[in-house]
Amino acid sequence: MKVVYLDNNATTRVDPEVFEAMLPLLTDQFGNPSSAHGFGALAGAALRNARRQLQALIGAEFDDEITFTSGGTESDNAAILSALQVMPDRTEIVTSAVEHPAVLTLCAHLEETRRVKVHRIPVDCQGRLNIDAYRAALNPNVAIVSIMWANNETGTIFPVAKLAELAKEVGALFHTDAVQAVGKLPMDLKSTAIDMLSLSSHKFHGPKGAGALFIKRAVRFHSLIKGGHQESDRRAGTENTPGIVGLGMAAELALKFMDEETPRIKWLRDRLENGLVQRVPNSFVNGDPLERLPNTASIGFERIEGHGILHLLDRKGIVCSSGSACTSGCAEPSHVLSAMKMPYGAVRFSFSRDNDQEDVDRVLEVLPAIVEKLRDASTSEPDSWGAEDLHCVPGLSGRRTGHHS
Amino acid sequence: MKVVYLDNNATTRVDPEVFEAMLPLLTDQFGNPSSAHGFGALAGAALRNARRQLQALIGAEFDDEITFTSGGTESDNAAILSALQVMPDRTEIVTSAVEHPAVLTLCAHLEETRRVKVHRIPVDCQGRLNIDAYRAALNPNVAIVSIMWANNETGTIFPVAKLAELAKEVGALFHTDAVQAVGKLPMDLKSTAIDMLSLSSHKFHGPKGAGALFIKRAVRFHSLIKGGHQESDRRAGTENTPGIVGLGMAAELALKFMDEETPRIKWLRDRLENGLVQRVPNSFVNGDPLERLPNTASIGFERIEGHGILHLLDRKGIVCSSGSACTSGCAEPSHVLSAMKMPYGAVRFSFSRDNDQEDVDRVLEVLPAIVEKLRDASTSEPDSWGAEDLHCVPGLSGRRTGHHS
Repeated sequence: MKVVYLDNNATTRVDPEVFEAMLPLLTDQFGNPSSAHGFGALAGAALRNARRQLQALIGAEFDDEITFTSGGTESDNAAILSALQVMPDRTEIVTSAVEHPAVLTLCAHLEETRRVKVHRIPVDCQGRLNIDAYRAALNPNVAIVSIMWANNETGTIFPVAKLAELAKEVGALFHTDAVQAVGKLPMDLKSTAIDMLSLSSHKFHGPKGAGALFIKRAVRFHSLIKGGHQESDRRAGTENTPGIVGLGMAAELALKFMDEETPRIKWLRDRLENGLVQRVPNSFVNGDPLERLPNTASIGFERIEGHGILHLLDRKGIVCSSGSACTSGCAEPSHVLSAMKMPYGAVRFSFSRDNDQEDVDRVLEVLPAIVEKLRDASTSEPDSWGAEDLHCVPGLSGRRTGHHS
Repeated sequence: MKVVYLDNNATTRVDPEVFEAMLPLLTDQFGNPSSAHGFGALAGAALRNARRQLQALIGAEFDDEITFTSGGTESDNAAILSALQVMPDRTEIVTSAVEHPAVLTLCAHLEETRRVKVHRIPVDCQGRLNIDAYRAALNPNVAIVSIMWANNETGTIFPVAKLAELAKEVGALFHTDAVQAVGKLPMDLKSTAIDMLSLSSHKFHGPKGAGALFIKRAVRFHSLIKGGHQESDRRAGTENTPGIVGLGMAAELALKFMDEETPRIKWLRDRLENGLVQRVPNSFVNGDPLERLPNTASIGFERIEGHGILHLLDRKGIVCSSGSACTSGCAEPSHVLSAMKMPYGAVRFSFSRDNDQEDVDRVLEVLPAIVEKLRDASTSEPDSWGAEDLHCVPGLSGRRTGHHS
């Protein structure tokens, strides 16, 4: 049975060209880039090339604005902790209620241990940031704003360029966790006020274990991991040369394919969403209908949770997710859907350039019967939701399909 | 020209079997181990296997005592910072003057920013720790002792098991940076009082970008990188599955080859050392003559610095180092040799199971003429050392070759 992989926001397949690029670094060219000899210099040159490939993808003005890390979580931690260090007089952080745990867990820890005040800006039922609340939270005591570029569960895109400008008005640094956006959306960081940006290789067909933090030249930075002089003293430790070279090639390919693949991926995603809401009664699409990643579909089904669906889809060879992979190990409901006041769990289908129409049609063929079966087995009453929940049930906000309801 | 690679303490070639083990994770088995579906479970199983392979190599009692990280530097930082967090009433650190920058740079930073007191235990001219000074530094205000298992530049081995027991007497945690020891020396951590141990995959034929921190079960630990629940909440961020699987296989191979390869590697190393001190007048071997890694030779040549030698050896296709790769990018003299009061730089030759007698004989053939050439070009006077330096010139402490002197 061919597996239909629709969990690309959790991780993506390493592109064969990425693997090809990594191969020499995993075999002959194993030198340490910090070594003074020619063997090390070869590895050093490979790092420089990767830095330029990534620079091009995100539109950074200088290649030295890129610091390689072990991944998105490390980058997020490094950015936020650095800001508190370089601005010791400021003790507040502004973030959103729907950030990745890499940001939220760190913020909670800082609140507990360092008397840092954290503003968690709420979102509406389409996952859009409350801009009034954001403006109100900004004040001269804010060291850093950390708002994601796009949400991993719903795909909702935040207006980070505008948010960064507002942050500048109070002298705060602006960081964005762009782990889900890099490689999926065009970027030109040099034309924005964004100071720092986190990204992760394995979200756009690069290998796991490699990521980067963009740090604008004017921004002072204190390293999270201290030791040798690697990465211009911004990230100590022998560089993961195969991973970084893979990241560089993944960046090059993402840029190369973006114009051509984005409309195709969006078409697949839309076909799935439209097909499901037509075929499955009382199903709805989560997230901002306009500003949303082209590859992400978060679909809710009244009266059933995502987990049961996932399990049955998995048995049919269809792989997707009920939330982010980073939290799917635990039984807690998604903090993103909770923040959106969604009364049901959701199933996230996330596409990449590896997917095709056959994948979509397979889901459309299999999923309606699964939902029906689970609903039949469920003892929940369809009318048992509290009045509290009702204002955010998508049908009432205009996006639920009425079909068969 | 076949390259003679004798810089294995900087980094090692990925073993072809390690590469083979990584391959599926870099191609078909790309799932995120945190994903709930079967695709993720496959990656999760690979991690469990790697944990057990590493457990066997270091002799840990439980596999959950191993937390995967991005490498040795991250592990060192995580161990030391955790100790200060779990023992907030203790504000002192004991370390040695010859630690890796991963420990020393962090300690210097903590001294500056957190009013932590750092005791840097000196070494003698053979690189051996001053045990009296160590005992004197230990006191109930010490949160953590961090002493390396073996020095990366000279190979000198520290008596960590004994040092750990002494640390326990004052209730301090004991951490060891064993980056240069793991895979080269037999270990049985369950029979020691060592609380935490750092290791790095690429030092024993695994890939770069993967390492681990051993944390004994009884030890409380606070994560350095916060976010998702990976690694039992001890290290957030999607696991570098190919890297970790490579680390696991590298551990299995290190254990498999240790008995057979260690005497052979030591024989090669000794052949090089003996050959050089016989052929090159006024040359000497640095480090403890008895307690030393079997693969490491640090050779000093009176009146000349290591850098010139390295450059000329590199041109002859012989790759080695003048210190650690992590500091070789900068022009500062080795802090290890300075701590040993060595008046000259040194050349470090570090072996692995990839080396053979031909490699050694090539160095013996080429190096004497290089030293002679550099000495002829040098204007230094052989008698210009200060009296201060003399007590540590190896000839006077009995290890310099008198031949041709």
